[in-house]
Amino acid sequence: MTFRTMEVHPWSLATNTLDKEHKRLVESLTSLGNGYMGMRGNFEETYSGDTHLGTYLAGVWFPDKTRVGWWKNGYPRYFGKAINNLNFARVEILVDGQVVDLAQNEVSDFNLTLDMKHGVLARRFTVHGVKFEVTRFLSLDVKELAAFKWEVVAVDGKEHRVEFKSYLDGDVHNEDSNYEEKFWQTLDSYADNNLATLSIQTVPNPFGVEQFIVHAEQTFAGDFAPVKHQRAADYVVNEFVTSVGAQAKVFEKRVVVTTSRDYLSLEALQAGADKLSQLVQKESFENLLVAHSKKWEGRWQIADVQINGQGDKALESQQGIRFNLFQLFSTYYGEDSRLNIGPKGFTGEKYGGATYWDTEAYMVPLYLALAEPEVTKNLLKYRHQQLPGAKHNAREQGLAGALYPMVTFNGIECHNEWEITFEEIHRNGAIAYAIYNYTNYTGDTSYLASKGLEVLVEISRFWASRVHFSARHGQYMIHGVTGPNEYENNINNNWYTNRIATWVLKYTAQALAQFPRPDLGVSEEELAKWHEIVENMYFPYDAELDVFVQHDGFLDKDLRPVSSLDPVQDLPLNQKWSWDKILRSPFIKQADVLQGIYFFGDQFDLETKRKNYDFYEPMTVHESSLSSCIHSVLAAELGKEEKAVEMYLRTSRLDLDNYNNDTEDGLHITSMSGSWLAIVQGFAQMKTWNNKLSFAPLVPSIWDGYAFHINYRGRLVKVSVDKEFVTLALLAGEPLTLELYGKEVNLKDTYQVNLGVANV
Amino acid sequence: MTFRTMEVHPWSLATNTLDKEHKRLVESLTSLGNGYMGMRGNFEETYSGDTHLGTYLAGVWFPDKTRVGWWKNGYPRYFGKAINNLNFARVEILVDGQVVDLAQNEVSDFNLTLDMKHGVLARRFTVHGVKFEVTRFLSLDVKELAAFKWEVVAVDGKEHRVEFKSYLDGDVHNEDSNYEEKFWQTLDSYADNNLATLSIQTVPNPFGVEQFIVHAEQTFAGDFAPVKHQRAADYVVNEFVTSVGAQAKVFEKRVVVTTSRDYLSLEALQAGADKLSQLVQKESFENLLVAHSKKWEGRWQIADVQINGQGDKALESQQGIRFNLFQLFSTYYGEDSRLNIGPKGFTGEKYGGATYWDTEAYMVPLYLALAEPEVTKNLLKYRHQQLPGAKHNAREQGLAGALYPMVTFNGIECHNEWEITFEEIHRNGAIAYAIYNYTNYTGDTSYLASKGLEVLVEISRFWASRVHFSARHGQYMIHGVTGPNEYENNINNNWYTNRIATWVLKYTAQALAQFPRPDLGVSEEELAKWHEIVENMYFPYDAELDVFVQHDGFLDKDLRPVSSLDPVQDLPLNQKWSWDKILRSPFIKQADVLQGIYFFGDQFDLETKRKNYDFYEPMTVHESSLSSCIHSVLAAELGKEEKAVEMYLRTSRLDLDNYNNDTEDGLHITSMSGSWLAIVQGFAQMKTWNNKLSFAPLVPSIWDGYAFHINYRGRLVKVSVDKEFVTLALLAGEPLTLELYGKEVNLKDTYQVNLGVANV
Repeated sequence: MTFRTMEVHPWSLATNTLDKEHKRLVESLTSLGNGYMGMRGNFEETYSGDTHLGTYLAGVWFPDKTRVGWWKNGYPRYFGKAINNLNFARVEILVDGQVVDLAQNEVSDFNLTLDMKHGVLARRFTVHGVKFEVTRFLSLDVKELAAFKWEVVAVDGKEHRVEFKSYLDGDVHNEDSNYEEKFWQTLDSYADNNLATLSIQTVPNPFGVEQFIVHAEQTFAGDFAPVKHQRAADYVVNEFVTSVGAQAKVFEKRVVVTTSRDYLSLEALQAGADKLSQLVQKESFENLLVAHSKKWEGRWQIADVQINGQGDKALESQQGIRFNLFQLFSTYYGEDSRLNIGPKGFTGEKYGGATYWDTEAYMVPLYLALAEPEVTKNLLKYRHQQLPGAKHNAREQGLAGALYPMVTFNGIECHNEWEITFEEIHRNGAIAYAIYNYTNYTGDTSYLASKGLEVLVEISRFWASRVHFSARHGQYMIHGVTGPNEYENNINNNWYTNRIATWVLKYTAQALAQFPRPDLGVSEEELAKWHEIVENMYFPYDAELDVFVQHDGFLDKDLRPVSSLDPVQDLPLNQKWSWDKILRSPFIKQADVLQGIYFFGDQFDLETKRKNYDFYEPMTVHESSLSSCIHSVLAAELGKEEKAVEMYLRTSRLDLDNYNNDTEDGLHITSMSGSWLAIVQGFAQMKTWNNKLSFAPLVPSIWDGYAFHINYRGRLVKVSVDKEFVTLALLAGEPLTLELYGKEVNLKDTYQVNLGVANV
Repeated sequence: MTFRTMEVHPWSLATNTLDKEHKRLVESLTSLGNGYMGMRGNFEETYSGDTHLGTYLAGVWFPDKTRVGWWKNGYPRYFGKAINNLNFARVEILVDGQVVDLAQNEVSDFNLTLDMKHGVLARRFTVHGVKFEVTRFLSLDVKELAAFKWEVVAVDGKEHRVEFKSYLDGDVHNEDSNYEEKFWQTLDSYADNNLATLSIQTVPNPFGVEQFIVHAEQTFAGDFAPVKHQRAADYVVNEFVTSVGAQAKVFEKRVVVTTSRDYLSLEALQAGADKLSQLVQKESFENLLVAHSKKWEGRWQIADVQINGQGDKALESQQGIRFNLFQLFSTYYGEDSRLNIGPKGFTGEKYGGATYWDTEAYMVPLYLALAEPEVTKNLLKYRHQQLPGAKHNAREQGLAGALYPMVTFNGIECHNEWEITFEEIHRNGAIAYAIYNYTNYTGDTSYLASKGLEVLVEISRFWASRVHFSARHGQYMIHGVTGPNEYENNINNNWYTNRIATWVLKYTAQALAQFPRPDLGVSEEELAKWHEIVENMYFPYDAELDVFVQHDGFLDKDLRPVSSLDPVQDLPLNQKWSWDKILRSPFIKQADVLQGIYFFGDQFDLETKRKNYDFYEPMTVHESSLSSCIHSVLAAELGKEEKAVEMYLRTSRLDLDNYNNDTEDGLHITSMSGSWLAIVQGFAQMKTWNNKLSFAPLVPSIWDGYAFHINYRGRLVKVSVDKEFVTLALLAGEPLTLELYGKEVNLKDTYQVNLGVANV
């Protein structure tokens, strides 16, 4: 069941309807971010209807206590949350003394448009005879800057007294606060008629987590006259007034936000904000906007994916991929190695933590291809910095080495379901896989040889202590895990987990042989032990079906396809069924065996891929946002075009069409790379195994063609595909040897192949 | 690691030490109860040191909300708690204006004695030159009555002004309140110089659970003069004073407590308390005490177990069994079929709920033998009354029939760990087993034919919808369960669960054939389906080891005995290991396969019992209080005397010697029947299979002998065992045919057998 609220345009989301019923959904979709901060598409002015206020600052979080009732040894003590931050967008607008409130007023000429090309949110509405046009952006040029402009004009031939009260509001709370506690306290404030500042700090916590300080300063420009200012316990406000007639008047608000993540003291972060504020005050709104927009345009020059075609599906596809890239880059563009990619980015509260395995498993390939290697390296460094936390996690479980957390801000696990925290340990494999991925893609072995090996060795030590030897089988096993398919818990010998654990041990040993690191203290005995595990690992396999078995016991289930379910009574399972029923069922939340086949695609032949795909896909409900893309990639490889397209649309328009009926909570940021994977690794069949770049594109019948860029080992390659030709253009860098449909191509400038010929 | 704080006496617990460090532990051990209400051994007067206040009223509870963070479909919405009730014992005592506070004062001549024979707690201490002797009891004769007496005398040759301020204090809280919320509000109060009353009510809750009202009235007697009274928001107080010299002065406090469980309105329960209060005011403290004590003596006449012997172990054994029976009867003596037996009784907060499967699995045999059949019938009726709640639970999981809850007050599940709530479903078998047990023991089929079958049919329907057919195996299976061994979760085909589920289906079908109940709508098809499941159930079994396998995959573990663990580093596992490590390990919390062999002891030969015992017991850590007794019983049957004794001491002195280092939280009430089972079903080998009573006693070498009574089908039989003779005496009822060491005995009066002869 899908639901669409915004019109389909190639470069924007727009609507002329003020949809009060789906306000939260629209707010999620119109979120803005610049990697440093972000906000939901909340209206700046008073809105008394249902709304979900959300402004977030990257890396500013709070450890919300979670302990209630029954508890088990080793449970994390808190759940870390990217918390709702001070509401610096807030204004109150009065027209002739009447409060502007779109939930209550009669509104005409409404429009809301998110311009993805330039990163601007624009809104227009007329109330009380006055038309307002609002423009806002979070600057890519000055990351601390949020800028707002209102153009106000009377459309009823009268003169109106219009007042603006501009707030910095620290009285905010998280809707998901476990104990309905406030996470903020006010430290300091200042106001005069021309500016105001507010400094807030997270309240004390018993977990030793840093208390963040956030400071905001607002300044103004335009045609309105300052008349008053006010300081209260939790907010500051500046008031302005003017008379508005047929000639448009402008009110501009600029907010600069600094945090204790970048400054050592309250004084320093206040001074920093002052300085930046003075800087941005010197520039016109238009100049600030141009500087910002140019940066977005620059990103699109490298990253844009064009989809051509006449039908609705082609346009929907086009909007989908751009929306995903826009929101992903709004969340993270790799500038700060202390940050990672939160599952909701800056668009909502759900899932709390900053970092999931999603980053390594689903984001890294995209950032490798669409940004400089440094961006991905920063993601890897993030994990290296958190190695002490990961070692702490392993110790908490009585194990050696490092266990990277399921959810974290600082490396220490903060998710509190044992079946996830203690058991969904396959994540530790993905962390290692990303090191391989970076090294294999870029050809740069320096990270592997230095920090990478430190991480790999500790992950390997974890795996070596986590396996056990089953005397009965004479093989090593891994009991008590949750695989990527979280619809089964505490299972034994998850094929995917056993596979990636074994791979890590092998890869680490190889890397150590290539780049000796005596300082890491890996003895011959330890290496021998790893080797013994690798050679004697048990992998569930069924000879009759000739498939890898998801885990011991899976084939004992009442196996049946998703098509046997009642779409209304039964789906989605996670809303209709109790947990035990889901666990006992054969239905798969997201690719599990297939995830492994995707990761190690060069190690399986097509027949193996097809058999496993045909066995597992029919039982998969794709209720994880991370499922569709992997299935789309594999379906494309297996020539299952229809399925590949279905999965592409699902992944690329997950939020735009609200597939999971939960986008009101925020966007599915960490699955947004999925649509790109589906196009580039799926339809275009880009592969990079063993230092070789290759493509084997196909064009889905709903499209006429598509084009994208790839940043690969210093080259920028444009790949254009239509029904007749595949064209490769080397836009920058040295000539490159690659493979197209299995044929070697030496790309110097432009190379074109006629599909009619190539596909034979 | 054990720790003993109270002296060992046959009929009492006593100490001359004021042990401030283990105050909570001592408070737990000196708890009193009369089935209607109970309290920890808190000092009545001010105690500023560490203490855990606890006063509880049977069936008065509060639904504490539990939802924090992650949540799954079908989770219970609250955790029900037997909450800390108004503190009616409280006094403040002043000697010459100085507050008596044993945490601060210099104390001499201290003694604390729990008299188990008469149900009286006595305390003596001297402070500020004045000696106090305190006596208190919760009356078995008037269940609403708590009576306190202080005898005060100067021992320093001086005259002292002694004041008593007697409180009814509603300002109490639960230490385990999830949100640190108060559960009580004051409704009404009254005070004059001679009496005071306080009416409190549980605060509103969003779950539709009844708001209980509790009303208390305090009156006084003795040599002290009333001087003042006071009413505050949450308490009332009466003040008394006198001068105390060499002649002892007495202060008596009587409290009557009524609740909305027994009265329909506030006025009615106030009037009820008034009436009772006037009644008990007419009697002297001594007369009230005698009436109470006589009831305890009456209970002991039926229930007492004597253990003879010279050594410490015999005395410890004696005290242990009496302590267990005393605390068990203090919690429940079957007067009220709306009540059940909470895991901590009236001795602490932990585990919250009123009712666990412990009752059916471990209590029923004891109450059958030591009380009138009506008592056990009341326990069965309790479950019948809660059938609607059990059906609700099954529906919540999308299943048919009834699923009795793991933890409840009203039939609706209120435990919130999915691996327990949704999966520890074997409990549903124990509910059915108790019906069988009652019917088989008493020979009374009337309950089975009426209410019993209604329960059995719904439980059977649950099982029939909970199994699934594994096409691969061609057999029925039960996936995703937690067995009695809670150190494994979400396992497949737990032998015990499969066994008891199958047994229920078979037993229900048999009972239906014997007592047709067309009103229950069990069709031929339904019966045929049950039969098919019974005939085709899969039971994990290993031919090589010739043992029943705890569950699929158990034998794949790294199997090793508890003796391979480091007692300091590793034990107890639940305090030293993280949950995942426990789950993966082969170590068993409590009997699992052996629990089944115990329940269906007539269906397995000795060799089978021995093989399974020898396989599983070495891997069992007995970290459940319910484990040792079953092992003791089986060890005795298998002639493993040393193990049987070890397990007996562990179960009988679990709290007295603080085996699990958690008795400070309260006593392990529901495992207290275990020591009785170990003696009667273990050492004396009492069996009641198939309408036949039999014994085959042995005397553990640490004892000289032992004796106990059995109430069996209208007869009272005394069984006395020493090293030479077993003596059976028919104290009441018709002659009875039974078996002794496999030989039929027609018991008319007394029968004695010489062990030297019999044991050959």
